[in-house]
Amino acid sequence: MKFIAEINVMPLKEILDPQGKAVAGSMKNLGLSNIKNVRIGKHITLELEAENEAAARESVEQACKQLLANLIMESYEFDLKAI
Amino acid sequence: MKFIAEINVMPLKEILDPQGKAVAGSMKNLGLSNIKNVRIGKHITLELEAENEAAARESVEQACKQLLANLIMESYEFDLKAI
Repeated sequence: MKFIAEINVMPLKEILDPQGKAVAGSMKNLGLSNIKNVRIGKHITLELEAENEAAARESVEQACKQLLANLIMESYEFDLKAI
Repeated sequence: MKFIAEINVMPLKEILDPQGKAVAGSMKNLGLSNIKNVRIGKHITLELEAENEAAARESVEQACKQLLANLIMESYEFDLKAI
């Protein structure tokens, strides 16, 4: 079976996000001072082949833990969809 | 009213994504050769104050167009949730 995974990798809440802070500051300059608490992470989409959803989930977990997310500073979540 | 927006900014399908290609290559080295077509973009969360959902949507559109996405190379989509 073929699956599409949509993964979000975000900086942990306890950790400062300087890129988000910079963007929040720029919002003010654009007249969008109603926007606050900007946090910026990664959105990753990938396709994978697996026997079933459990195996696909396992592969994506492994990819996130070993490559896509730095678990010291980031957390991840993902959705899996069969195609 | 307060809203949370979850925004995804992704490279356009027609455009090469070298970061995604590099990650797809690394997947093979990790033994995850079942993973293909990796594309990497940004996931942005932000909070905003607005009178109603239409006004909030308008603010987020403006933020995406003017700051968060480069519309020549990227597309964006977002979900809005009242909190």
